[in-house]
Amino acid sequence: MAAENTSAAASGHVQPEIDVPALTEVLDGEYAGIRDLVRANLVTHASVLEEAEELGVDAFRERVRDLVVAMAATGQTGMGFPREYGGGGDIGASIAAFETLAFGDLSVLVKVGVQFGLFGGAILHLGTERHHAAYLPDLITGKLMGCFAMTETGHGSNVQALGTVARYDAAAQEFVITTRGDQARKDYIGNAARHAELAVVFAQLEVAGRSEGVHAFVVPVRVDGEVAPGVRIEDDGRKMGLNGVDNGRIRFDGVRVPREALLNRFADVTPEGVYESSIDNPHRRFFTMLGTLVQGRVCVGGAGVNVAKVALAIATKYAVRRRQFEAASDGEEQLLLDYGLHQRRLLPLVARTYALHFAQDVVRTQLHEVFSATEDDAPARRRLEARAAGTKALGTWHATRVVQECREACGGAGYLAVNRFAALKADSDIFTTFEGDNHVLLQLVAKGLLTHYASEFEDLDQLGLVRHVTGLAVETVIEKASVHKMLERVRDLLPGGDDWDQEAGLLDSEYQLAMLRYREEHMLAGLARRLKRGIDRKRNPGVVFSQVQDHVIALAHAHVERLVLEAFVDKVRSLPGSGNKAALGLLCDLFALSTIEADRAWFMEHGRLTVQRSKAISREVNALCRKVRPLAVDLVDAWGVPAEMLRAPDLVG
Amino acid sequence: MAAENTSAAASGHVQPEIDVPALTEVLDGEYAGIRDLVRANLVTHASVLEEAEELGVDAFRERVRDLVVAMAATGQTGMGFPREYGGGGDIGASIAAFETLAFGDLSVLVKVGVQFGLFGGAILHLGTERHHAAYLPDLITGKLMGCFAMTETGHGSNVQALGTVARYDAAAQEFVITTRGDQARKDYIGNAARHAELAVVFAQLEVAGRSEGVHAFVVPVRVDGEVAPGVRIEDDGRKMGLNGVDNGRIRFDGVRVPREALLNRFADVTPEGVYESSIDNPHRRFFTMLGTLVQGRVCVGGAGVNVAKVALAIATKYAVRRRQFEAASDGEEQLLLDYGLHQRRLLPLVARTYALHFAQDVVRTQLHEVFSATEDDAPARRRLEARAAGTKALGTWHATRVVQECREACGGAGYLAVNRFAALKADSDIFTTFEGDNHVLLQLVAKGLLTHYASEFEDLDQLGLVRHVTGLAVETVIEKASVHKMLERVRDLLPGGDDWDQEAGLLDSEYQLAMLRYREEHMLAGLARRLKRGIDRKRNPGVVFSQVQDHVIALAHAHVERLVLEAFVDKVRSLPGSGNKAALGLLCDLFALSTIEADRAWFMEHGRLTVQRSKAISREVNALCRKVRPLAVDLVDAWGVPAEMLRAPDLVG
Repeated sequence: MAAENTSAAASGHVQPEIDVPALTEVLDGEYAGIRDLVRANLVTHASVLEEAEELGVDAFRERVRDLVVAMAATGQTGMGFPREYGGGGDIGASIAAFETLAFGDLSVLVKVGVQFGLFGGAILHLGTERHHAAYLPDLITGKLMGCFAMTETGHGSNVQALGTVARYDAAAQEFVITTRGDQARKDYIGNAARHAELAVVFAQLEVAGRSEGVHAFVVPVRVDGEVAPGVRIEDDGRKMGLNGVDNGRIRFDGVRVPREALLNRFADVTPEGVYESSIDNPHRRFFTMLGTLVQGRVCVGGAGVNVAKVALAIATKYAVRRRQFEAASDGEEQLLLDYGLHQRRLLPLVARTYALHFAQDVVRTQLHEVFSATEDDAPARRRLEARAAGTKALGTWHATRVVQECREACGGAGYLAVNRFAALKADSDIFTTFEGDNHVLLQLVAKGLLTHYASEFEDLDQLGLVRHVTGLAVETVIEKASVHKMLERVRDLLPGGDDWDQEAGLLDSEYQLAMLRYREEHMLAGLARRLKRGIDRKRNPGVVFSQVQDHVIALAHAHVERLVLEAFVDKVRSLPGSGNKAALGLLCDLFALSTIEADRAWFMEHGRLTVQRSKAISREVNALCRKVRPLAVDLVDAWGVPAEMLRAPDLVG
Repeated sequence: MAAENTSAAASGHVQPEIDVPALTEVLDGEYAGIRDLVRANLVTHASVLEEAEELGVDAFRERVRDLVVAMAATGQTGMGFPREYGGGGDIGASIAAFETLAFGDLSVLVKVGVQFGLFGGAILHLGTERHHAAYLPDLITGKLMGCFAMTETGHGSNVQALGTVARYDAAAQEFVITTRGDQARKDYIGNAARHAELAVVFAQLEVAGRSEGVHAFVVPVRVDGEVAPGVRIEDDGRKMGLNGVDNGRIRFDGVRVPREALLNRFADVTPEGVYESSIDNPHRRFFTMLGTLVQGRVCVGGAGVNVAKVALAIATKYAVRRRQFEAASDGEEQLLLDYGLHQRRLLPLVARTYALHFAQDVVRTQLHEVFSATEDDAPARRRLEARAAGTKALGTWHATRVVQECREACGGAGYLAVNRFAALKADSDIFTTFEGDNHVLLQLVAKGLLTHYASEFEDLDQLGLVRHVTGLAVETVIEKASVHKMLERVRDLLPGGDDWDQEAGLLDSEYQLAMLRYREEHMLAGLARRLKRGIDRKRNPGVVFSQVQDHVIALAHAHVERLVLEAFVDKVRSLPGSGNKAALGLLCDLFALSTIEADRAWFMEHGRLTVQRSKAISREVNALCRKVRPLAVDLVDAWGVPAEMLRAPDLVG
């Protein structure tokens, strides 16, 4: 094998060498400090990985709570809150800390997300100073635990249709919170079954008999450890994973809270019962409120990418230890990673993990800038929301796929709990659903792209068609340029005219980018055409939408993949010349070409790939896998997953 | 929606109606009786689904053992053994019983597989009358528990490389069993950690200093509940799933067993120490021994298909209850299954499940015939082995994919343990690995197809190249005809000459079959060419093989999919005209076209699909989904999964 591997060098390829610590610096970026703090905390508390198996549900929930409080004391979990209340005042650092925490037990991660991201985030972003002063200091330390009561049994993604009601009683100057029917009970609420004292409850606000839409209220659900009067809490019981998080169901039977319990940053009710808001349009008001919660999606997407790193680190290290079947020549069995198939299974996933890591850097930076700015930049906020939705979907699906592939690549050993995949798989499974179902999120992304067409196809909004595309967040234009202009822009990218892409080198990143841009923009124009045709024919908009829904998802997917590739290419270009730059260049090519390869049918169907070129891409992916193979261990080591988090003594020890 | 749905009828399509009990009869076939017995037993013991969550590992293992013994008493688990020892004397029925058991808790299923399939099967097929008389009566009742000690820590798929040694001591007329090094310890062995009294141990037989290859021995591992002297047993501990099965590791430190402990159907050692076998070629002898164990693969493949049925039944029923987002017209939220995307996610999987069900019927029948025959039919046995390997791989990957898609399609509710997916996912995960890793099995399938080339490329065997394709079972020719003849045969299938397939109706099953046959045979010829080219260039065979390994897997996959489609088409054709036949016809079209669609890039690359036709296939898949949508609940009901096995009160109740 060795002789054959070096033969690649003869053909002009110089095998790069990786400087692992330097590559870790590139990956950790400006947040190396907080990431190292989290790594150290993970190692300190590494026993939780075994405790997750050994303890019963009740004991494990308490253990996870204690761990969350212990980590809070190090400052790790409070980075996103203002300094005056005991936080770290650095939103980007809070995301980086959360991402890094995903190397460890995921119940701890999710409990941190519930307490500081969802509950704390709602108090911070939807509340005003009176709420901040009252709650932030104690919630940052974990002394005050809370939950985020949005989802209902009958309403997950469609938040505008929630059934819980908060009626204002002007005489008492109180809100009366009521669960109307079983479908309206709050469900799957983390921290609800056991630890939350307060809940941020999302409910339809009724003032003077008039519905003002969904608003958030602070409602005590436990007093001195006992469930509060009028509140009923059920335990959601055992789950596929994350059994250290106490999910539960909450019903409210006319629970009264004072007028000040309304989180009133965007809307308020006067003592006399007059509804007031700085945002006139109720639809826009709703999405503005929800939009402040985008941080959860950015966090979960990044956590998904880091879950993938843990799985790939184990599978890669195993594949350079484990031998199976003889090589013909010498009688020794061959290492798994020297098989072409095994390279094909793991290495494009390593490349995609790097790509998603750098894409996560971009969205984290956007989030940090939007939320650190003193003035609101609405278009930047919309861009962030769409991007967060898209990277969350791709990052979490990637985690599910990678964990499965890596478990299978470790065979029977991968099935033993001690070897980590059991927890990784069970705990991360829900990532594709919570903080927004991935399919709904991609429709949200597509809506952002389509909304631009509203002026051309004004019937779209009249028929309520765009509402079908999603009920969530992004409501305005994502891209300023018209699609026709975009297509021209793509042509501008092809230096040799319209046929350039059929001649360009496969390893030319301009070619790779042009391919993904063309796909996205062609899909956008095609989808708009289909929608318009349906409307022109006066068809039922629900049916029209249902029939193009696969195109909607494909468009969003193409859009996000283009953003991911741009992030990777930009990153590689920004690095000074070095072995690391060369290695990342190989990896970026592998990501780009394996992405094009996976959708090569579409490119052929749309005249962007000849049969010959399509086959050449598959050959090049194989060739890139062989070039990346000698770098594989360094590439996974550079992620800096603490050895204690890999566990897996039989696989990597 | 209703008005739009019936508009399909206006275009000539008559929506069929399904007779559910009659369709269940078609599915259950000749084994309706044993399947209903198993269904009844599952319902009787339905509480095990909750106990799997509630009991600790030790208690659950005992509970599962008790259940296995209780089921054995009904005759359900002994169908495959001869009547004279207390069995049912019907091998096909034993497979059908096992498949049906997969509707329930999978620890019970796997423990049944270990005890009666692996341990009992080894005694039956590798032993002779002395072993049958000594062990079968008690193992059939479950009084005598045993384990199947083949896999070692360092050797899974490559059984010929096992490290355990059985040396014959002629003076004592005993075999001495020894574990040579950590990599040779038996590992992941079901029943080993707790319940097995006997082990069938696979070890390298040494007689008079000469190695005779791997043979099987009956070795007591526990005596009166205590681990036997010289035997060391460790517990494999908690696993991702199947925690009702006590997997463990076994080491042997010079354990002595009498000469009669050798399972001597195919080879024996005389008291004086002379090795004798009715099969001269050691390679052939090894594969003949292993080949008798093919039943395990047939069982696991069928179990995978039935796991998929449970998941799809839950997700389909949920999708016709759950509403999400408003339809534009009437203010009521729309059912999930009326969304085009949701149809796309679930209905092709329903179609593939039916296809794999009927393919399983074929392989089960082949198994029954081969093992019920009074004379050995070697070619039939080889065909069976290849087919079993292929359907096992596709059936178990299907299970993994379906369970994941269905969990996601049930959102957060799908994550709660009470809703079944937690156990389905964790327990079935290992199906892709045990009884042969799926990738290794597909290489085995490909080897069968390739071996035919050996006469043309005789260097293949000299270079040991074929050995790389797999170390397992099939060793001789699968197909008699040469590839060139096969290609001619395909052309004969195209009535209008070579271009017929570009004009034929997409819903013509001859067209669909011709496409899958063409793909397979083109891949076979192409792979043989690549291998020959590598050999002609005197390249390292290991490297040549590594570089074509993705083609090897693709070929095998194409081969098995062709067999699956043939089974489905044959089944539909065999039915009398009825609504059921029409419904299965739609489903068969959906399976065929979604299969072609998934690989449409290949068909375009190889000139078998124009761009226009490729797009037409995607449109037709969408249209078929809409036609199947009204039949979906009947289609999943016809599988006859007992309601108690669906559990999921919130999703289907």
